[in-house]
Amino acid sequence: MRVGFFGLGNMGIGMVRNLLAAGHDVTVFNRTIEKARPLEKDGAKVAAHPRDLAGADVVVTMLADDAALEAAALEGSGLAPAFAAGALHLSMSTVSVALARRLTEAHARAGGVFVSAPVFGRPEAAAGAKLFIVAAGPPDAVDRCRPLLSVMGQKTFVVGDDPPVANVLKLAGNFLIAATIESMAEAFALARKSGVDAEQVLEMLTGSLFTAPFQKNYAAMIARGSHEAGGGFALELGLKDLRLVLAAADAARVPMPTASLVHNQLTAGVGRGLGALDWSALGRLAADNAGL
Amino acid sequence: MRVGFFGLGNMGIGMVRNLLAAGHDVTVFNRTIEKARPLEKDGAKVAAHPRDLAGADVVVTMLADDAALEAAALEGSGLAPAFAAGALHLSMSTVSVALARRLTEAHARAGGVFVSAPVFGRPEAAAGAKLFIVAAGPPDAVDRCRPLLSVMGQKTFVVGDDPPVANVLKLAGNFLIAATIESMAEAFALARKSGVDAEQVLEMLTGSLFTAPFQKNYAAMIARGSHEAGGGFALELGLKDLRLVLAAADAARVPMPTASLVHNQLTAGVGRGLGALDWSALGRLAADNAGL
Amino acid sequence: MRVGFFGLGNMGIGMVRNLLAAGHDVTVFNRTIEKARPLEKDGAKVAAHPRDLAGADVVVTMLADDAALEAAALEGSGLAPAFAAGALHLSMSTVSVALARRLTEAHARAGGVFVSAPVFGRPEAAAGAKLFIVAAGPPDAVDRCRPLLSVMGQKTFVVGDDPPVANVLKLAGNFLIAATIESMAEAFALARKSGVDAEQVLEMLTGSLFTAPFQKNYAAMIARGSHEAGGGFALELGLKDLRLVLAAADAARVPMPTASLVHNQLTAGVGRGLGALDWSALGRLAADNAGL
Amino acid sequence: MRVGFFGLGNMGIGMVRNLLAAGHDVTVFNRTIEKARPLEKDGAKVAAHPRDLAGADVVVTMLADDAALEAAALEGSGLAPAFAAGALHLSMSTVSVALARRLTEAHARAGGVFVSAPVFGRPEAAAGAKLFIVAAGPPDAVDRCRPLLSVMGQKTFVVGDDPPVANVLKLAGNFLIAATIESMAEAFALARKSGVDAEQVLEMLTGSLFTAPFQKNYAAMIARGSHEAGGGFALELGLKDLRLVLAAADAARVPMPTASLVHNQLTAGVGRGLGALDWSALGRLAADNAGL
Repeated sequence: MRVGFFGLGNMGIGMVRNLLAAGHDVTVFNRTIEKARPLEKDGAKVAAHPRDLAGADVVVTMLADDAALEAAALEGSGLAPAFAAGALHLSMSTVSVALARRLTEAHARAGGVFVSAPVFGRPEAAAGAKLFIVAAGPPDAVDRCRPLLSVMGQKTFVVGDDPPVANVLKLAGNFLIAATIESMAEAFALARKSGVDAEQVLEMLTGSLFTAPFQKNYAAMIARGSHEAGGGFALELGLKDLRLVLAAADAARVPMPTASLVHNQLTAGVGRGLGALDWSALGRLAADNAGL
Repeated sequence: MRVGFFGLGNMGIGMVRNLLAAGHDVTVFNRTIEKARPLEKDGAKVAAHPRDLAGADVVVTMLADDAALEAAALEGSGLAPAFAAGALHLSMSTVSVALARRLTEAHARAGGVFVSAPVFGRPEAAAGAKLFIVAAGPPDAVDRCRPLLSVMGQKTFVVGDDPPVANVLKLAGNFLIAATIESMAEAFALARKSGVDAEQVLEMLTGSLFTAPFQKNYAAMIARGSHEAGGGFALELGLKDLRLVLAAADAARVPMPTASLVHNQLTAGVGRGLGALDWSALGRLAADNAGL
Repeated sequence: MRVGFFGLGNMGIGMVRNLLAAGHDVTVFNRTIEKARPLEKDGAKVAAHPRDLAGADVVVTMLADDAALEAAALEGSGLAPAFAAGALHLSMSTVSVALARRLTEAHARAGGVFVSAPVFGRPEAAAGAKLFIVAAGPPDAVDRCRPLLSVMGQKTFVVGDDPPVANVLKLAGNFLIAATIESMAEAFALARKSGVDAEQVLEMLTGSLFTAPFQKNYAAMIARGSHEAGGGFALELGLKDLRLVLAAADAARVPMPTASLVHNQLTAGVGRGLGALDWSALGRLAADNAGL
Repeated sequence: MRVGFFGLGNMGIGMVRNLLAAGHDVTVFNRTIEKARPLEKDGAKVAAHPRDLAGADVVVTMLADDAALEAAALEGSGLAPAFAAGALHLSMSTVSVALARRLTEAHARAGGVFVSAPVFGRPEAAAGAKLFIVAAGPPDAVDRCRPLLSVMGQKTFVVGDDPPVANVLKLAGNFLIAATIESMAEAFALARKSGVDAEQVLEMLTGSLFTAPFQKNYAAMIARGSHEAGGGFALELGLKDLRLVLAAADAARVPMPTASLVHNQLTAGVGRGLGALDWSALGRLAADNAGL
């Protein structure tokens, strides 16, 4: 398939390589064009302007946040001409439910088609085609995307016809990860202050019930106090995601006290200077609040 | 080994059967002696009074709560004579850290030995010898218990020399389960009120990141609204456990805002008439608060 | 002074009467023009279109929410022509800090002047000129407004040159009221469930420390379970205000856990069907959660 | 009346002076007897042992906490002989509802009479006879105490026949104070980080709605960051009181999320090294969490 791909961050680069490896004809665009160059030797074409992605069967966006996606997809200087031509827009970023709704409506008005398909996974998972993808959109449009989704992720969950519901579930998942980190942070603070060695806590928890890979990963980071955000997910990005969770909850009139609590802890983490660390640094905040 | 076993609730009965099946010489006691009778045909001896457990190499207690264990182990009419004889007390109930501390001290004064070894697992896990056991106590005493622990559980974590730390970790684990239930309850309320089908939420969450067996179990109960506490864990017992978590946190001066939140939700659950349901009924509370 | 007044809700009507009584020349506009008619016999002129307010020395807006003020002041069909003529815009509604910021900037671009002056007080206080007014804006512009402010309120607090800070303080005040209601709701639930008569609780609390008029007012409503919103402030409007508080807190990166808690309680109040009652109905929510 | 008075802390000394000034015949006891000496010149007799308070018409206790009162009133070495003689015990300390219940029962068994009458007020209020007193007990016993209560406080609220309800209301009041401090701490953090001068916030809040003396007092301490606990109430004592609030709430099965939140903030305050400051230092915690 002819694919346009907009957004070459840590995630996007791996995803494009997997599309190319599967034989797709990929044209990429990135605001900082230097990030596109290394992909040329993998077979990607590099566009000078978003409108050059027009003509693709599917245009994928993988951008940092609402503002970037809005600028790319809804403003005149961006992808609008590409979409006006009727291309399918496959949005894979973690963005707000409200923006997904606006895109759904804008594409409908313009005669285009919109599929929302945010992903779970870190850059390594993107590179290794191990992403979990949550997709929603018109069934035939989702089907047209399958040859792409199947080579970027290990599993795709189709959760409905209405694109924004995919964003709801992606945000719900991020909330559950954040809530796990916060509760583990509290549990480790209790155990350590009660005199238990952190490694023993880690071994017991992850060797008994808390066996999901993300639990093992975050429990180890908390136990060892290793929160450098190199390959991680910065606490201030986590704060952004919790903000989106609470916006969705507020719009739907759903009390989410645990999400509020985590949002406040992340905000305090930023206030305490931990914003650039991995969001497992909630473990440090909990330890400091316990006087450890 | 000669084993005395005090407490034949849903958990204790399965544990005794596994001890008998492994060839141990088990004498049981229960306040309601009728519950002991079925074990006779499995080879158990039935004691008429707790003091008849004296003479055992190890006396196991598996009781409902602090009050029951305190009555059994610290009051004159109970096991005291058995322990005065120097027997090893292996306490496997979920009780407070403070009571574990008092027992440690009382046994030390009386010349006895105390091992604390609470367990994770439901009655089926007790029957199937699939418990996870968290043990702490003097190393040689823990070693003396191993022939029993190894036939009652699938894995034993020895977390230190000081018995009460086992209770800290058991409570920390129960807190993490409760926090998982509450956060899933909120996530499902958000998703459902946003128009996503609960089964699709369930499939997506437990098919991607949230793959630990207890997560799958509770997510399914929340998705389906099936909170009958038949084989489950009653919400009001969960409230009791969170009370113990907060007591330990308060004693150690550790803020645990998520634990406080869950404790308040469980209390509201009791106030709303859900106390006898499985504690996954936090899902119903969240749904009701969302106007679902 | 020649005054244009846009917005004749429960609050606006009393404010206009006080302006007229003080001799000001007031032209009023309201989307539902019938609400303007009764003011004619008090001396008000009734405009058929917002643009007819152009020419006034000061145009006051007193509207329901962000959407109404935005439509009135920032969209072409509204007051824009009036402001383009350089009139001073005195905004007295409770709106978001973000909208106050946008209005500040829009008026600066258009050559107009903006003063933000939200108020504390119920409709009776508006009618009786007993409002507390929190004002911010360029000092000379605030001075020009004083002949109006002094006849609408009992006291004006000038809190800075930058208009949006007035909105921050108004929202902070509403948050403090809401937090007082919630904490009193919890205190009454505790006392009642402990067997104390609600009237005795009321007498003790408001006769000792909790003597501010708003405390007496809300404590009485909670004690008596009288939450009909006739002359009150609907719980769902309170939810709107807390949303604005949290938006300001989030933008400023300030953790406000109590504000989050109250927001979640108000949301649950809406979910439980209490949205149309006075926001003191948080007392009913607390009582229900306590099983009273 | 002949009065025995046990407990000469900052509060007790002023209370005794007021009793003496009113002509009562007062015998005092304190564990550290040096604190009793200065009262001799005011006319007090100094007892060498608690049992020497026997024979008084009323024995007042004003002690630091549950442990001190329990040691004084329930253990053999303390006041028991005095009470066995049928004296009326007037307990004015802030202690747990559970201890008040135990004292009620113990005195009933011993043939004595118990009145619980905790107070609101700082040491200056005790010295100036400005305390607010919350009393509960058998009506005739409360009446016998009136000649004492009326000279120690400015107002006595009789809230029921059952002594522990007075403790419930005292704790409810302390909770409301603490919740006010926490919410003001958050409001000031929001306003300051939004660029408003703290003195202007203070003037506006306390000049409009938040006019109760304790609100003015705490708002000023937060605005000025003056939390030295000289004449104040140490944060760690506040933590103790919130612990008693939550114990009462838990026993009564009443969710008190705001009380839990404040308890956690106070615990974090202790963990962050603020425990010896006045509990208005919650303002510093909020500011630090906001990155101010």
